[in-house]
Amino acid sequence: MSETELQPPESEGETQLDEDDRLKPEFVRAVLDAVDAGDAEAARALVDPLHPADIADLFELTPAEDRGALAAALADMLDGEVLAEMNDYVRETLIDALEPGQVADIAAELDTDDAVAIIEDMDDEDQRAVLRALDPDDRAAIEAALGYPEESAGRLMQREVVAVPEHWTVGDVLDFLRADETLTTDFWEIFVVDPQHKPVGTCALSWILRTPRAIAVADVMAREQTLIPVDMDQEEVALRFQKYALISAAVVDPDGRLVGMITVDDVVHIIQEEAGEDALLLSGAGDGDINEPIRESYSARVRWLVANLGTALVASTIIAFFGGAIEQMVALAVLMPIVASIGGNAGTQTMAVAVRALATNQLTQSNTIRTIRREITLAALNGGTIAVLIGIGAALVFGNPSLGAVIAAAMLINIVVAGLAGVLVPVLLERLGQDPAVASSVFVTMITDSMGFFAFLGLAVLSGLVPLA
Amino acid sequence: MSETELQPPESEGETQLDEDDRLKPEFVRAVLDAVDAGDAEAARALVDPLHPADIADLFELTPAEDRGALAAALADMLDGEVLAEMNDYVRETLIDALEPGQVADIAAELDTDDAVAIIEDMDDEDQRAVLRALDPDDRAAIEAALGYPEESAGRLMQREVVAVPEHWTVGDVLDFLRADETLTTDFWEIFVVDPQHKPVGTCALSWILRTPRAIAVADVMAREQTLIPVDMDQEEVALRFQKYALISAAVVDPDGRLVGMITVDDVVHIIQEEAGEDALLLSGAGDGDINEPIRESYSARVRWLVANLGTALVASTIIAFFGGAIEQMVALAVLMPIVASIGGNAGTQTMAVAVRALATNQLTQSNTIRTIRREITLAALNGGTIAVLIGIGAALVFGNPSLGAVIAAAMLINIVVAGLAGVLVPVLLERLGQDPAVASSVFVTMITDSMGFFAFLGLAVLSGLVPLA
Repeated sequence: MSETELQPPESEGETQLDEDDRLKPEFVRAVLDAVDAGDAEAARALVDPLHPADIADLFELTPAEDRGALAAALADMLDGEVLAEMNDYVRETLIDALEPGQVADIAAELDTDDAVAIIEDMDDEDQRAVLRALDPDDRAAIEAALGYPEESAGRLMQREVVAVPEHWTVGDVLDFLRADETLTTDFWEIFVVDPQHKPVGTCALSWILRTPRAIAVADVMAREQTLIPVDMDQEEVALRFQKYALISAAVVDPDGRLVGMITVDDVVHIIQEEAGEDALLLSGAGDGDINEPIRESYSARVRWLVANLGTALVASTIIAFFGGAIEQMVALAVLMPIVASIGGNAGTQTMAVAVRALATNQLTQSNTIRTIRREITLAALNGGTIAVLIGIGAALVFGNPSLGAVIAAAMLINIVVAGLAGVLVPVLLERLGQDPAVASSVFVTMITDSMGFFAFLGLAVLSGLVPLA
Repeated sequence: MSETELQPPESEGETQLDEDDRLKPEFVRAVLDAVDAGDAEAARALVDPLHPADIADLFELTPAEDRGALAAALADMLDGEVLAEMNDYVRETLIDALEPGQVADIAAELDTDDAVAIIEDMDDEDQRAVLRALDPDDRAAIEAALGYPEESAGRLMQREVVAVPEHWTVGDVLDFLRADETLTTDFWEIFVVDPQHKPVGTCALSWILRTPRAIAVADVMAREQTLIPVDMDQEEVALRFQKYALISAAVVDPDGRLVGMITVDDVVHIIQEEAGEDALLLSGAGDGDINEPIRESYSARVRWLVANLGTALVASTIIAFFGGAIEQMVALAVLMPIVASIGGNAGTQTMAVAVRALATNQLTQSNTIRTIRREITLAALNGGTIAVLIGIGAALVFGNPSLGAVIAAAMLINIVVAGLAGVLVPVLLERLGQDPAVASSVFVTMITDSMGFFAFLGLAVLSGLVPLA
């Protein structure tokens, strides 16, 4: 009994989507077969019931070389809403194939934020051509948005807002909203502004609906508002929306004047991206988008692997120093990767926790010391457990209790060092103004690898288990 | 020039928050000093201007042993809104210290979803005591919600919705909203239902505000709605909100009747958690919350380390098999961790990308083959680059071109295998209905470690560089 039988997610979507709202592979194939056969009519009939977000998915799931033909077959179904929902890389290749005039037509239907999202990735010349093709009002709005830094609130906001003066009544607001046909259609709050156009309060539409006409908006609005500076980074904007459970927020210029509005649906995908990118950044996979051109992915990933080659060489140098000892007791070579590898895992765990806590503002100066103490305690517990297991195991397998004692001690040391490095490295990088997710793991891996080999081989020599050479 | 000077994020918040909306450490210290000194009045004066979300943060930043005293000093400032914003672990310890009657008073002020969030983590006996202390309506609503599976839409929804019949006009809706004082205060859309209470359309408040009184709601509502089945998993709910840019959505029972509503602000933290947990799951750090009790963190992490100990033993067994070769050429011991370690990094990159693409529904059956091909191409490029670097380096350092050739070939093989494993393992786990983020990295690490040692040592013997024993 699938839930889609009982309650289709959308009135006509049940044949195209699986239970996770993904387009079914047989549906995608059917559309592409129709396009291949030159039957644009059939393709359009299949795609017609889809939500714009699903049409965008369809393009993403289509092999790159077939996207042009699909776009040609669907023609004007590839509108601004579909493009706004589309993966950046896929959109870029499609946009490149369009004339500036066509892009301008698409941009003109959209709110500023969506239009900017489409235009900002184009190269300068194409961008200018599109802007020239827009009518002056739209052009001015988009040019203003492009004047703000990338990934800032200014790029994210729409300029279409409902702002009313303080002295209006609820009745004035209702009449105004009913009279002006050109207002943005989707808004959830209205902003009350003073004569300098500075926001003085926010009014949820539900409050307006529930208040008699004669009451002044100033009497129902919330005076405590969360304002977004226009140059604020989008990650900060997303955290602020999340922390204060905002639906929309006024964006203000450095003089405190209302210049636009950001709504939560524009922020949700940023929250998702920023939260999800930690796993990618920690692994050194860059953007980590499966639609990214191979050349860019290669450049991001190989740089990381070369950096890790550097740290691996440090570990190798330590091993080489103990080469004589290894020659005399090959069991050391057999066991040493275990110490390094488990240490690396323990460090990665702590680092993932610390990076996450920093990203969500849970780890601040107020609880850094406490968190470090917590992680060292955990590391000691983990280290003790693993040390006992591997110590007994090695002693039995090699019939050498001293070897067991040496690997147990080395394991405990390395896991505690890993715990310390796992929290200290991200915290220090953050204090230095770096993104802890980007660089932490190279340092932590270098520390746990080197310390793993050094502690194990060093203790083996120090304890008199083997001579150094 | 800090942005808070120009535009404080909240009207009175500039002295307590830093530029990232985190409570300043000196502010936290000032509050705790006042509590320590027994000056509850001073503590309350400091905390009074804070948003509930910031009061929740204050408790999280306070050491566990001081939270009781802080709660006592702030007394009724620790209300439902603050508790709803609080980290689960921190809230649990605070709630445990309260009487069931106090918890019931707090729950009674809240919407169902927030009340459930507070009550669902209590043990059965305390939960029953709180439910007994609630008035019958609230109790029924919360018991109904607790009857749905954990992390399902039923737990997440609020039962307080505005639902109107199809035949009403916009004027009827306005009169109804103004007359009923008991309605939920924050809502962004109203639902239009048929006589069986099944949703037939959704109406954004902005459309109602802009439509003359005489028009029927049926004429302005959107008939294409995205409905949420009450037993849907919260992760699916979050993806659906994100995909279709929803502000709120109707929740329906298996018969299709409206039973509640989920608003985007309840989903935003789930989107954030679900996206962020991949990094934690991939590292085996479990919940990875710095407020989690040490015992739970220890249990989650040590299990993972033991699993990795198992995979490390597989790698060690392979090394042991080649023990004789290593004794004759200790350079093998020096270089072998490099092959395993860089292979592990390459596998982790691909795995992070694949896990992310699966979680965001970007990688589906329609593009699996294409994605595998893409990752193998990338792996070949990365492998080729690193192989050349390490091959030349090893040949020069050890003055042994054959050794350089062997490590280059092993590196290329291992990075290509890593790329294949990095995408195949998560995809297969997903097809088997497992969460790819949870188990992938144990398998991928085992494959890259074992293959790293096996390819390098095996090729060294096969090529005649060293004898096996």
